[in-house]
Amino acid sequence: MEKVMTNVLSKVNSPQDVKKLSIPEMRDLSSEIRKLMIDKVNVIGGHMGPNLGIVETTIALHYVFNSPQDKFVFDVSHQCYPHKFLTGRKEGFTNPDNYLKFTGYFNPEESEHDTFKIGHTSTSVSLACGLAKARDLKGENHNVIAIIGDGSLSGGEAFEGLDNGADLNSNLIVIVNDNEMSIAVNQGGLYKNLALLRQTNGQAECNYFKALGFDYIYVEDGNDVETLINTFEKVKDINHPIVVHIHTLKGKGLAPAEERKEDFHWMLPETLDENYNAREVIRFKGENYFSLTNDFMIKKKSEGEPILFICPATPGATGIVQRVRDELGDNYRDVGIAEEHAIAFASAAAKAGAKPVISILSSFIQRTYDQLSQDLALNNSPAVILVNWCGLSNADATHLGCFDIPMISNIPNLVYLAPTNKQEYLKMLEYGVNQKEHPVLIRVPFVNFIDSKQEDTTDYSILNKFKIVEKGEKVAVVALGDFFELGEKVCEKIKSEFEFTPTLINPKFITGLDSELLENLKQNHKLVITLENGILDGGFGEKISRFYGNSDMKVLNFGGKKIFTDRVPIDVIYRQNHLTPELILEDIKSVF
Amino acid sequence: MEKVMTNVLSKVNSPQDVKKLSIPEMRDLSSEIRKLMIDKVNVIGGHMGPNLGIVETTIALHYVFNSPQDKFVFDVSHQCYPHKFLTGRKEGFTNPDNYLKFTGYFNPEESEHDTFKIGHTSTSVSLACGLAKARDLKGENHNVIAIIGDGSLSGGEAFEGLDNGADLNSNLIVIVNDNEMSIAVNQGGLYKNLALLRQTNGQAECNYFKALGFDYIYVEDGNDVETLINTFEKVKDINHPIVVHIHTLKGKGLAPAEERKEDFHWMLPETLDENYNAREVIRFKGENYFSLTNDFMIKKKSEGEPILFICPATPGATGIVQRVRDELGDNYRDVGIAEEHAIAFASAAAKAGAKPVISILSSFIQRTYDQLSQDLALNNSPAVILVNWCGLSNADATHLGCFDIPMISNIPNLVYLAPTNKQEYLKMLEYGVNQKEHPVLIRVPFVNFIDSKQEDTTDYSILNKFKIVEKGEKVAVVALGDFFELGEKVCEKIKSEFEFTPTLINPKFITGLDSELLENLKQNHKLVITLENGILDGGFGEKISRFYGNSDMKVLNFGGKKIFTDRVPIDVIYRQNHLTPELILEDIKSVF
Repeated sequence: MEKVMTNVLSKVNSPQDVKKLSIPEMRDLSSEIRKLMIDKVNVIGGHMGPNLGIVETTIALHYVFNSPQDKFVFDVSHQCYPHKFLTGRKEGFTNPDNYLKFTGYFNPEESEHDTFKIGHTSTSVSLACGLAKARDLKGENHNVIAIIGDGSLSGGEAFEGLDNGADLNSNLIVIVNDNEMSIAVNQGGLYKNLALLRQTNGQAECNYFKALGFDYIYVEDGNDVETLINTFEKVKDINHPIVVHIHTLKGKGLAPAEERKEDFHWMLPETLDENYNAREVIRFKGENYFSLTNDFMIKKKSEGEPILFICPATPGATGIVQRVRDELGDNYRDVGIAEEHAIAFASAAAKAGAKPVISILSSFIQRTYDQLSQDLALNNSPAVILVNWCGLSNADATHLGCFDIPMISNIPNLVYLAPTNKQEYLKMLEYGVNQKEHPVLIRVPFVNFIDSKQEDTTDYSILNKFKIVEKGEKVAVVALGDFFELGEKVCEKIKSEFEFTPTLINPKFITGLDSELLENLKQNHKLVITLENGILDGGFGEKISRFYGNSDMKVLNFGGKKIFTDRVPIDVIYRQNHLTPELILEDIKSVF
Repeated sequence: MEKVMTNVLSKVNSPQDVKKLSIPEMRDLSSEIRKLMIDKVNVIGGHMGPNLGIVETTIALHYVFNSPQDKFVFDVSHQCYPHKFLTGRKEGFTNPDNYLKFTGYFNPEESEHDTFKIGHTSTSVSLACGLAKARDLKGENHNVIAIIGDGSLSGGEAFEGLDNGADLNSNLIVIVNDNEMSIAVNQGGLYKNLALLRQTNGQAECNYFKALGFDYIYVEDGNDVETLINTFEKVKDINHPIVVHIHTLKGKGLAPAEERKEDFHWMLPETLDENYNAREVIRFKGENYFSLTNDFMIKKKSEGEPILFICPATPGATGIVQRVRDELGDNYRDVGIAEEHAIAFASAAAKAGAKPVISILSSFIQRTYDQLSQDLALNNSPAVILVNWCGLSNADATHLGCFDIPMISNIPNLVYLAPTNKQEYLKMLEYGVNQKEHPVLIRVPFVNFIDSKQEDTTDYSILNKFKIVEKGEKVAVVALGDFFELGEKVCEKIKSEFEFTPTLINPKFITGLDSELLENLKQNHKLVITLENGILDGGFGEKISRFYGNSDMKVLNFGGKKIFTDRVPIDVIYRQNHLTPELILEDIKSVF
């Protein structure tokens, strides 16, 4: 790490202040910003590599353009930190007490210089098209600039945006920040074209952006602020759509991040020692659902099964470490940020006799509703999908995992399973991979890893069979997936307060009801409570409410409200939604 | 129309028979197929232009390749008729009694030569990638051929498929059927590149497909069977991904279809007279929701509002006729088949002060879940979305409109409105366009057009306020949107059978409950029934069941089952789901 020699940042409180700086000052400012970003991320974690790569670009953009009159739309927000420094939020980096004051994403509620809340990829060009079109309709006159990383280009929406953007007969500037990386290594044919453009200094005739109708400029040194300023000056106020392809270095200024780009895309706290060297950091320690999955896949491959482990660009977040990718070889495929393709690809591979297993995050499976419905469910393709990072959480509003049950479970033909422990998970995975009848999705528990030490002997091909874990009376607790533990605690509470034994049920199936079991409960129960780790609207519990609608059975559904929470501590969310044994007991009392 | 001079078709019962034909016989076969397709479509309606354009391609494909060992994946199914002729299903065309025997889409249940059920666009390349990957993993050896129209190329999933397909180090053949049209006129920068490639006989260096890493061949006369056969022979068994770009004529062989390509993309019955000339056919007669919308948009534009009417490639299906597009000029935008872009584009335009209104079909809004959630809802952008062709229907399994309520209404921040008549629709549209607080979606009624003759004075900015249309006792009927009429009939039945007046409620809001009103019903009601024109799972009624779960109120939800129906007559669907006044009354009696 270079030392911070001056203090230019102290003079910069808004984009206007950037315009007063000299080139040498801007170079110093870059160093100061890098140092502060690294120190902060090493304390609280965050996107490291993308932000280190885009410092000069951000300074040059604010030097040349006039935000907020000119509109910046940064894709996906993995590169928003330098922008936050320059737009009144540097205290979120300079003062450790304020490290958590601002979100790690763009948010218009924080600053007029943030145009949208953004956290999913590949949207910037379409959003910029909308801003440009509104500008034109209203007879206004300003620049609209989308800044999109090469990783985001692989998402279909980015293509749709470029294809449509090229038709605008007015100002639209698309900065392509090419750091030769997606979250992991770039995938897909497009990246060979970007490489060709880099090799030819942008001169190759075969040019993806020109093929879509854009004017085009290439900048080889995308980390030189002076070059960038000169380029942006040229395209400012341009009267037609243009791509500015800049070549930057992901992780620039931090040696380990330059070397191990994927590991430093998102960095855990305390990854660096006091000399800014990398410590050995293991993301998922001990036995966990990711390690179980990896072992399962490798075993299947060794048994000669045509297993196909698919991940859309997030292997690091789901524990598919490099060793596993290497061992799986052709049986592993990272499709890049292309979730729609992932589902259709897996659907077809399953139909053709391969055994595809997709590992995806709850927040990102949202990007594939139509493929889940049409390619997968309608065709009853026996692909397996592991839905990770599910449930209510303290996550940013753009990365919530509490919507997958309503999204997935109301599509016909899908079998969505909710294991409560290691043994059930493995049995479900085995079932999913071996069967040929249904698309099978598994909601991988995220809250806790539980080893029951007892083999699960359930036959999951008998669909929608709930399991009575303890037979009781009066109250039945239907506790889904990783809220099963909560269900156990609620039952304990009931036993000690009411002196009767309630019935505890592990439903296991999210996508269908066990009508016979529910019907039988009517005999000696008067209340059913349901627990699910996600929003209630359109979810699991409401189906049980509907089932009992014409009977005397009372039903209470527990889960989350239909809202976008934003970094709300999980204990607050639990309290607000009555998701503690104590609060649930109070609600039971009010009915009883 | 040329006359059918020979009868080659009688010799063709399977793809094997195609291989025995001479070139002149194949030319005659093309004419025979065209004549029979036109005659059938003129009786039952169907996709005319795309099928007329691809006759020779289909014959040449079956001549050169060996289906079902070699795998064809035709995109979107708009061009499946010639394939059905050659794969054992010609009786669906030769015998008018069998016109409805086969679906108008691909369906593996009909034939081993159909690889998937397909009806939504842009999926073929991803599906072909999956088939190719499974082949490679299993050590098999056959051709995988995706056939994709130029219109489908604008969808993001097609790009994702091409981008990933280029990485396959094995056989993958993508036939791009370039007929210079989407459903309506092609939109987007890509089509200029296709035009350049046509003009240069495929020689231009700037080539979209090459930029994505594909090998490439161009065929100028894509309606000459001999040229096509020679080309396909060249690429058969190729060991890497290649695009075969063929230039065809949409509507070929039917003069009006060649001239008016959009009108004949999907043709209504009896569009042609006995001389195969076009009759004047008006798709949506009289005053209807589409004409109301058109008039509204034109009026807003004339008042100087920055209105932006957006349609993703289906203006014909939502009544946006050419006159309206012309009158709206820059205030209208067909974004092509690019639904994700449409939502993000509108979200941003709304944020920037324009007044976007998207017209889309229920079946296709599925393609935008993540954009509805992230770009629109999370940002609370005040765009308006008209959801058309909603509800249970006799449609093909790929085009059902009964899933939009579960998909949309469980996303936070969205306001989804259900008008029951013309006046409510106009008032809601006016509200949606004028307000700045929420994304507003309107579920445009499809079953009936009802003019209440009474102005709607509701203030829709007061959210989730249900309307009591008739105040009664004992039973409350909550009848949503275009099932309000059914609710009226149910109330009539109750009155005559039970001799009391039930309460009739028009909820108007799908996305939130009127807790106060529902609470008040407890005073003198013991049963609430809900009616919704869509599937029940995750829908509107279940939320009311949940609401009453801890009370003595009984609830019955009426709507559809969570299944993909496939051309099931609507009266059968209604009966199966108890959606007639008589059957609903029986269910009420069983509770009462």
